Amino acid sequence: MKPLRIGLIGYGFMGRAHSNGYRKVNNFFDLEYEPVLKAVCARNQENAKAFAAKWGYESVETDWRKLVEREDIDLIDICTPNNTHAEIAMAAAKAGKMILCEKPLSMNGKEGEQMVKAIEKAGVPNMVWYNYRRVPAVTLAKQLIDEGKLGRIFHYRAKFLQDWTINADLPQGGAGLWRLDLKAAGSGVTGDLLAHCIDTAIWLNGSIDRVSAMTETFIKERKHTLTGKVEKVGIDDACAFLARFSNGSLATFESTRYARGHKALYTFEINGEHASIAWDLHDLHRLQYYDHRDAGIVRGWRSIHVTDGDHPYMGKWWVPGLQIGYEHTFVHQVADFLQGLANKKPASPTFRDALETQYICDAVLKSAKTGRWEKVTKLKSRK
Amino acid sequence: MKPLRIGLIGYGFMGRAHSNGYRKVNNFFDLEYEPVLKAVCARNQENAKAFAAKWGYESVETDWRKLVEREDIDLIDICTPNNTHAEIAMAAAKAGKMILCEKPLSMNGKEGEQMVKAIEKAGVPNMVWYNYRRVPAVTLAKQLIDEGKLGRIFHYRAKFLQDWTINADLPQGGAGLWRLDLKAAGSGVTGDLLAHCIDTAIWLNGSIDRVSAMTETFIKERKHTLTGKVEKVGIDDACAFLARFSNGSLATFESTRYARGHKALYTFEINGEHASIAWDLHDLHRLQYYDHRDAGIVRGWRSIHVTDGDHPYMGKWWVPGLQIGYEHTFVHQVADFLQGLANKKPASPTFRDALETQYICDAVLKSAKTGRWEKVTKLKSRK
Amino acid sequence: MKPLRIGLIGYGFMGRAHSNGYRKVNNFFDLEYEPVLKAVCARNQENAKAFAAKWGYESVETDWRKLVEREDIDLIDICTPNNTHAEIAMAAAKAGKMILCEKPLSMNGKEGEQMVKAIEKAGVPNMVWYNYRRVPAVTLAKQLIDEGKLGRIFHYRAKFLQDWTINADLPQGGAGLWRLDLKAAGSGVTGDLLAHCIDTAIWLNGSIDRVSAMTETFIKERKHTLTGKVEKVGIDDACAFLARFSNGSLATFESTRYARGHKALYTFEINGEHASIAWDLHDLHRLQYYDHRDAGIVRGWRSIHVTDGDHPYMGKWWVPGLQIGYEHTFVHQVADFLQGLANKKPASPTFRDALETQYICDAVLKSAKTGRWEKVTKLKSRK
Amino acid sequence: MKPLRIGLIGYGFMGRAHSNGYRKVNNFFDLEYEPVLKAVCARNQENAKAFAAKWGYESVETDWRKLVEREDIDLIDICTPNNTHAEIAMAAAKAGKMILCEKPLSMNGKEGEQMVKAIEKAGVPNMVWYNYRRVPAVTLAKQLIDEGKLGRIFHYRAKFLQDWTINADLPQGGAGLWRLDLKAAGSGVTGDLLAHCIDTAIWLNGSIDRVSAMTETFIKERKHTLTGKVEKVGIDDACAFLARFSNGSLATFESTRYARGHKALYTFEINGEHASIAWDLHDLHRLQYYDHRDAGIVRGWRSIHVTDGDHPYMGKWWVPGLQIGYEHTFVHQVADFLQGLANKKPASPTFRDALETQYICDAVLKSAKTGRWEKVTKLKSRK
Repeated sequence: MKPLRIGLIGYGFMGRAHSNGYRKVNNFFDLEYEPVLKAVCARNQENAKAFAAKWGYESVETDWRKLVEREDIDLIDICTPNNTHAEIAMAAAKAGKMILCEKPLSMNGKEGEQMVKAIEKAGVPNMVWYNYRRVPAVTLAKQLIDEGKLGRIFHYRAKFLQDWTINADLPQGGAGLWRLDLKAAGSGVTGDLLAHCIDTAIWLNGSIDRVSAMTETFIKERKHTLTGKVEKVGIDDACAFLARFSNGSLATFESTRYARGHKALYTFEINGEHASIAWDLHDLHRLQYYDHRDAGIVRGWRSIHVTDGDHPYMGKWWVPGLQIGYEHTFVHQVADFLQGLANKKPASPTFRDALETQYICDAVLKSAKTGRWEKVTKLKSRK
Repeated sequence: MKPLRIGLIGYGFMGRAHSNGYRKVNNFFDLEYEPVLKAVCARNQENAKAFAAKWGYESVETDWRKLVEREDIDLIDICTPNNTHAEIAMAAAKAGKMILCEKPLSMNGKEGEQMVKAIEKAGVPNMVWYNYRRVPAVTLAKQLIDEGKLGRIFHYRAKFLQDWTINADLPQGGAGLWRLDLKAAGSGVTGDLLAHCIDTAIWLNGSIDRVSAMTETFIKERKHTLTGKVEKVGIDDACAFLARFSNGSLATFESTRYARGHKALYTFEINGEHASIAWDLHDLHRLQYYDHRDAGIVRGWRSIHVTDGDHPYMGKWWVPGLQIGYEHTFVHQVADFLQGLANKKPASPTFRDALETQYICDAVLKSAKTGRWEKVTKLKSRK
Repeated sequence: MKPLRIGLIGYGFMGRAHSNGYRKVNNFFDLEYEPVLKAVCARNQENAKAFAAKWGYESVETDWRKLVEREDIDLIDICTPNNTHAEIAMAAAKAGKMILCEKPLSMNGKEGEQMVKAIEKAGVPNMVWYNYRRVPAVTLAKQLIDEGKLGRIFHYRAKFLQDWTINADLPQGGAGLWRLDLKAAGSGVTGDLLAHCIDTAIWLNGSIDRVSAMTETFIKERKHTLTGKVEKVGIDDACAFLARFSNGSLATFESTRYARGHKALYTFEINGEHASIAWDLHDLHRLQYYDHRDAGIVRGWRSIHVTDGDHPYMGKWWVPGLQIGYEHTFVHQVADFLQGLANKKPASPTFRDALETQYICDAVLKSAKTGRWEKVTKLKSRK
Repeated sequence: MKPLRIGLIGYGFMGRAHSNGYRKVNNFFDLEYEPVLKAVCARNQENAKAFAAKWGYESVETDWRKLVEREDIDLIDICTPNNTHAEIAMAAAKAGKMILCEKPLSMNGKEGEQMVKAIEKAGVPNMVWYNYRRVPAVTLAKQLIDEGKLGRIFHYRAKFLQDWTINADLPQGGAGLWRLDLKAAGSGVTGDLLAHCIDTAIWLNGSIDRVSAMTETFIKERKHTLTGKVEKVGIDDACAFLARFSNGSLATFESTRYARGHKALYTFEINGEHASIAWDLHDLHRLQYYDHRDAGIVRGWRSIHVTDGDHPYMGKWWVPGLQIGYEHTFVHQVADFLQGLANKKPASPTFRDALETQYICDAVLKSAKTGRWEKVTKLKSRK
């Protein structure tokens, strides 16, 4: 097996999820490549060392620029806050490294364009961690749609509901809370949660033409962890938008961190001429499927427990009926990336694919300000 | 339309349910016969009058023997405690009345045999109110089984779970509580709840050959409403049994009034070679259906919302998606009875059909005492 | 009991639902008033007679103006297409009749204002049949909100999804299909289905200030039943809108007749600071309730089977665990109307209450045309 | 960290599950011990080598006796068919190794007694892989019961339903199919699936006194993979039994491999005086909980999504709302075993704990033969 030497930047929640993916992938998938955990980078050396010990990284760095320049690294994995993605990615591209970047790709479309330009100029393999595409039930949804099972699509609706910021005493900014800080995150639920919904949506249902959005910040001021002062909250606590897809279907999207009772309830439903599908992350193994072509008296929503050997990815794991979890989506994404390296067929979503999501987020945030329908910038195909 | 003059005996819960059935049936079903609420009979005249006023009965009686003899009555409907069914039914048969009898038919098989003999000798139309056969989802289950959709049956399991007698302060006996009094009820959950499960089971899956049962009385003594004294509780609070059907399938049955959180959770599931079905009374409009012949990757339990026009009975009510409730099962049973009168094809379950359930209850209660498998007395066909 | 003499205009789906309500209400509720089915009116005398025979109406009329003038009628119940509500209601008001009107109240806000003016000038009791307020689980939701169980409300979302017009061969107009005819219906899903969602929403969560909407007509032309020609379809097949409530909460609303697999899936969810609730019409007896004040490790969405004696309306029906259905919402509404007559406290929603829904529908349809957020006309309190 | 050198015997489904547990445990749990994958043993050297390469075992053996004697091994993990457990375990005990053994412990109680005797004489740490105790929702159930939340227990019911052997062409015996071979497995669903149900049951609800069982073999003959001949099938395809617990509660247990539509549907429900709980493996993250002490109008079954940081084990994984899967139960069991080594408090179930399950299985299989209630041999406490 060929080693693929990983340099990880950032060691938070996503650092763990990716590391687990690298460590497990070869136990379950037959691949040409094998990730080698070469180095982890964090500003605080002690933390970096502890993480390296826990996960088996061979070395640590405290300056990402050094990591990017190291010759024994093949791939840079960016798990840092959103406002650092561009700089790191462009430096890594320049250094000729493969790049995996946490989502969202960038702070906005413009920045994303620069990243895409740089990375495509460098010609390095790249991918963005929109992991929910690789939930087996979601991949199955894609397969059913591509087979034409749904026919003409009329409706798409997606939600991502959480409730973790209802408490007004929660501060903004700092470790674990940078998602509440506009400067670090770029936006609130739009870039954090709706970006996931949008990525899945355009993968399953194609491009979005225009949107009409509203956003709200329910708690206007929070103590800032870094400054120690109570400061205005700049992010969107909630965002909902109407959308029209290029294929003529209508959509509603909504996300919030103020939906009491929901922790990570990402749901979507698609209604087609012949069939409909629905899914939710809280019961991630189930795909709901309704097929109008079933005989009338036994038509009903099927609750497909996506655990059979012929379901996407599931043949690699256990036996029918037994579930996998959230972390496995990262294992699948690593597996597909490695497969893509071997096959010379890039695994999706690439930086360019992820740029389309940025354009939509831009239009959403703009519409929320203007109060009008806003057109989405068209993604150009790679020349 | 031909009038069918009803004489109702008893005015409790079931008196209301049946009366509602008689009053509504012609609004929704096209039938040759129309029930006319001629008289209601109860020992307490005031109560009888109040009930008659509420439901539109033309007259009242306080002695059921008088009612049975009245010439302006075509049909006697028995809604009194179990220990009175036999006497009333046999008198009514002798008087040449049609008879509808609440379930269970009788206190035991022996008594039931006498009733069947009397009624068949009299040659009068008769039926027992096992109403759950006429829940549209249950009727659909029967239809699917009769079409052979399930193939060879391997398993049947049924439960009827309630929690209303956990409170030790609840007295036994008297109005509304005669179901706790062994003398009035004959048994506890076996005759009250398992009788429903058994009736449905033999309708759907054929005869039961033998059973192994256990019963329990969790609260050993309760104040008796009639005597005012604390007395030993004679009924079974809970009963579970294993069974073998004549078709080779295995079954488990269970009922209790000590299942906290369940009010009237009658459920059954049938597993066949090709397909399985499941149903529960708390969501009575849904039939769960799994068909192994569906294409592998989209196989799943279908939640059939049994409200379409081509589902049993549903074409008579509203539009797809809109539900009916518990009381409609009685309307359906009245409709089928009236249809049967017109067609000269008796609606099921007849007294004879219901006798089979008594035989099974007898074997269950016997097994609970002997600690052995007990054979079920075979129901003889009508000569 | 005091008789309340009913004159029903229209004998379609709603004519049946209301008639059933009138016939059943006194069997289950203790009331001072008793509806008497005096007359049904329909243009076709034969149909009127058949309906009268089926439901027990004493007489028939073929001209609604005659019915409205009859002295033996106390109450006019309007079950005709939307474009006739205003004229009939205003004539009935002039004749001093009480008026019950099917929803939506009117073709638009302006027409609705005239109706409210006329009826309030006449001083007659009045009500609009937004029946879903009286689903026991929905009434329970209202009770919980009024008790303050949810705290500050952040989010409201409602959908009403159907799939019955996906077939392009379905004609527009005529008996049973006037809902597809713009002239008769005034709008498509907005007035037919979203009106229900809006009525419940403002009842539960107060006024809506502004909306941003989109509508779509998926099938552009259909044969018109009345003209026999293929004509442009004028109604909205689907409509979705964003809204802001006066209490600061955000909302999404959506309705369509192109959501394969859903027959009458009216759903709503409300997220408050302390608790959330959710409901859907396909399982109408269940209220989902999440209370953050529950102890952490046992917090979860509670599936409340709203069938207990202390749940709204349920003490009048059967026993815990046993369900009622769609038609009972009309029985409840009749009961509340009759109670209101006795108490001199008008049952809601009155015509004035229902006018608010018209204003919102107007703003929704306008926004769908202008592509902008539109303010909702404020309902004036009665002087 | 102290190394714990593992010698694994067998490399099938369970070999993978355990190996994954060893490899992951230190990434997520803070522990004194760290498993080292020293050697894997299989009769076929090539297969052993492939497995070792995939999972990172340092060496291979083809004779388990050699492995057991190796000085560089601390712990023997037995993942071989049931009929080999005793011999290996007793040899390993003699060699002074710690022993982890796949369930069921043994072919029967007698054999199990010898194993317990040997291992306790040797004084080595030991554990049996009844992994379902460590599903977070199941562990939470244990916690709630131990806190007394349920009060007096009235009912226990468990099922383990599969459908993978309905096909009559499936052979018995050989790799992957030894579970159909009586000689290798000792029994069918009783030892394979009911053993899990029983282990959980006695952990949650205490000892079982007596049972009444039935078994069935639906497909009487199957081709034997090893002999190539069609042979009588000796195992039980299905087994159901009634049971009485020492605490006075009643139970039903059922397992089958002929329940179409169910892959690994292990479910249990417990009804107590104050509260009830229910769980199923197909949605393993949800614990259903009903508490009668909730206020009446908002009582309902709570669907607890067991993913919060204060739920058992979940603080070690991701964030609320995100699920783990089947394989994590083995990680938890390894973690608890290692913790137990550090604390000198044996992790359960030990061999002795697991012997109790063997006694119950013996009584079940005996009762199925005798047709009588059979007493369960009492487990003696360790002297």
